[in-house]
Amino acid sequence: MNPIGELNLTQRILMGPGPSDVHPRVLRAMSSPCIGHLDPEFIGIMNDVQQLLRYVFQTTNRLTFPISATGSAGMEACMVNVLEPGDHVVIGVNGVFGMRMSDIAERIGCEVTKIEVEWGRVIEPEQVQKAVNAKATKLVAVVHAETSTGAHQPLEDISKIARDAGALFMVDMVTSLCGTEVRLDDWHIDLAYSGTQKCMSCPPGLSPISFSERAMETLRNRKTKVQSWYLDVTMVEKYWTDGDRAYHHTAPINMNYAIREALRIVQEEGLEARWARHQRNHQALAAGLSAIGVELSAQEGHRLPMLNAVKIPEGVNDARVRSALLKEFSIEIGGGLGAGKGKVWRIGLMGESSCRHHVLYLLTALEILLTAEGVSLTKGAGVSAASEVYGVA
Amino acid sequence: MNPIGELNLTQRILMGPGPSDVHPRVLRAMSSPCIGHLDPEFIGIMNDVQQLLRYVFQTTNRLTFPISATGSAGMEACMVNVLEPGDHVVIGVNGVFGMRMSDIAERIGCEVTKIEVEWGRVIEPEQVQKAVNAKATKLVAVVHAETSTGAHQPLEDISKIARDAGALFMVDMVTSLCGTEVRLDDWHIDLAYSGTQKCMSCPPGLSPISFSERAMETLRNRKTKVQSWYLDVTMVEKYWTDGDRAYHHTAPINMNYAIREALRIVQEEGLEARWARHQRNHQALAAGLSAIGVELSAQEGHRLPMLNAVKIPEGVNDARVRSALLKEFSIEIGGGLGAGKGKVWRIGLMGESSCRHHVLYLLTALEILLTAEGVSLTKGAGVSAASEVYGVA
Repeated sequence: MNPIGELNLTQRILMGPGPSDVHPRVLRAMSSPCIGHLDPEFIGIMNDVQQLLRYVFQTTNRLTFPISATGSAGMEACMVNVLEPGDHVVIGVNGVFGMRMSDIAERIGCEVTKIEVEWGRVIEPEQVQKAVNAKATKLVAVVHAETSTGAHQPLEDISKIARDAGALFMVDMVTSLCGTEVRLDDWHIDLAYSGTQKCMSCPPGLSPISFSERAMETLRNRKTKVQSWYLDVTMVEKYWTDGDRAYHHTAPINMNYAIREALRIVQEEGLEARWARHQRNHQALAAGLSAIGVELSAQEGHRLPMLNAVKIPEGVNDARVRSALLKEFSIEIGGGLGAGKGKVWRIGLMGESSCRHHVLYLLTALEILLTAEGVSLTKGAGVSAASEVYGVA
Repeated sequence: MNPIGELNLTQRILMGPGPSDVHPRVLRAMSSPCIGHLDPEFIGIMNDVQQLLRYVFQTTNRLTFPISATGSAGMEACMVNVLEPGDHVVIGVNGVFGMRMSDIAERIGCEVTKIEVEWGRVIEPEQVQKAVNAKATKLVAVVHAETSTGAHQPLEDISKIARDAGALFMVDMVTSLCGTEVRLDDWHIDLAYSGTQKCMSCPPGLSPISFSERAMETLRNRKTKVQSWYLDVTMVEKYWTDGDRAYHHTAPINMNYAIREALRIVQEEGLEARWARHQRNHQALAAGLSAIGVELSAQEGHRLPMLNAVKIPEGVNDARVRSALLKEFSIEIGGGLGAGKGKVWRIGLMGESSCRHHVLYLLTALEILLTAEGVSLTKGAGVSAASEVYGVA
């Protein structure tokens, strides 16, 4: 075979549905020399990561650590550990990730009640109440931040309904964690999972999970073995938390350097300040987009700050604009997924990517490209509207 | 919580069972800025990685790519994709990783025939012949390089027996790939998986797998869905190989930069030269160890070049010596696993760690520490014996 050349990448501005821009400190930490997965210094790193994850999840859950794979493996880990064949589960399906949860539950052999609502809308508590009333339920699951639609799911009412029905409450926090308010303990969430490449601004490769004591009890009372060896947290837990740190699998060492540094940056900024920053940049972007005739598509009052799904303006060529954004401006935004394909763009403002210069640059680029597509707009209107939100107009 | 301090690691010399030392080029490539998992430039990286993996596996298998998790997930991926409940499998168990394969097969609901032999010994073809004669068999599996014992499993005879019996042949190549001869196609291996942190000298985090056309056919003819969503290669394959690169999960971007660079280094050295280097450093280490009274423990004639399991000399304190190696010399070697706990050390010479200065430094350190433990030895004998193998004595 011919020799493969040196890695030579174009610098991108990541404004898609993740990954987001990674801080140079994270890249630097990640490229520290590899050490062993049982080295006392690595054990120290594992302890730091767990402590920092408890902070960002706002939990005291003992079982809080990253699964050694990406976000979807965290979803699967949560489900295979507490569910057994025949269990009834209630899943809110308002986008791709609710569908994915249903798929996994079916592979486990569960009976799945899907609460299906239009993409972009949130699941209503009454719908969950009705579903758990109809049949004894082991688990209720929803997606906090539906990355495919931009919908921001309220959690507290559904949590209470699940708890009152004796069900566990699982929440997909892949895109919400570190970008909007998350309070595992206050909100009585039993199982949560996330990813590193969204509002944590760490490269993809790990999936933080957290299990409540109720979830752990369910796990301890299983009748069958967990179907996945790799994701069996009773074994992974021994490596992450026990005194003797029994070998299970080789953890992705350098990825753990990276998540530690990314979480340190979150800690330095402070969670509340970080949530507020995400909200502010979202408001500026929304104002700017609106001023150039681009409308958000998720349900009003339930829009995510870090994932802005917008309707592609009529007559505009989806692929041509996204391709020009990438080639001419080096900006990545996301296309639609599933039902949203060809209809929406997904503009991410996650972690390091949630910043004023990205918002203003994207508005500038979009103004140029939409004009070329024949959209009639007032020059400079987008940047002006966003600048007003920033107080620099 | 208190702020967590800056990452501050001691530089180690990695001579355990993996991870191995990582070349600075790999760390540098890995720390390139993150780009999107659907970016055309990332698709190019995926193509390079697949091409390089086909080279190191010596295969033309289309399905040859890294699973987005560590080596054990590759083991699980191979098994869950071709096995269904009720299938009969024959597994060679001569160490920890044969046990792990059995555990996974049982979780799938397979009927497992274990060929158990003493740890450190290899599985004999006659044993496999007997097992497949006894019952129709879906899969025969063995470990090429048993990292827990140092045994080097011959594959060709067993492959023929499996094929003649109509069974698929699966081989664990976590520790062998890039360190000793591996020829997937010539040896008719249907399923193989590996890890990045052994003889490839890349940080842990990915698990290269390869499926033959026979394995793909078995997958296509399944009656049930693959039990794992994350590891279902019919879906992952679409992301890695199809024209439209359908989103499945977010690949660990920077880890793929790393494996690409690590494989580029393998390509530059050449596989045959790399295998020969591993063999030479093993011979030097073995000669040096023997000269200071430390004996290899795996079956003679079947010893791995990259993983040297040795009997801990009588009267020597396992933990004290390994701890002193780490603290005083910054050398990591591995302790025993399972049946080998407290009885053997596992000395890795993998990838970048397979080099003359590591061999000579370890022999020097061991001489000092074993003398302190009361072992009687001739000063300088280890280094002399090794130097003779190198032709520098």
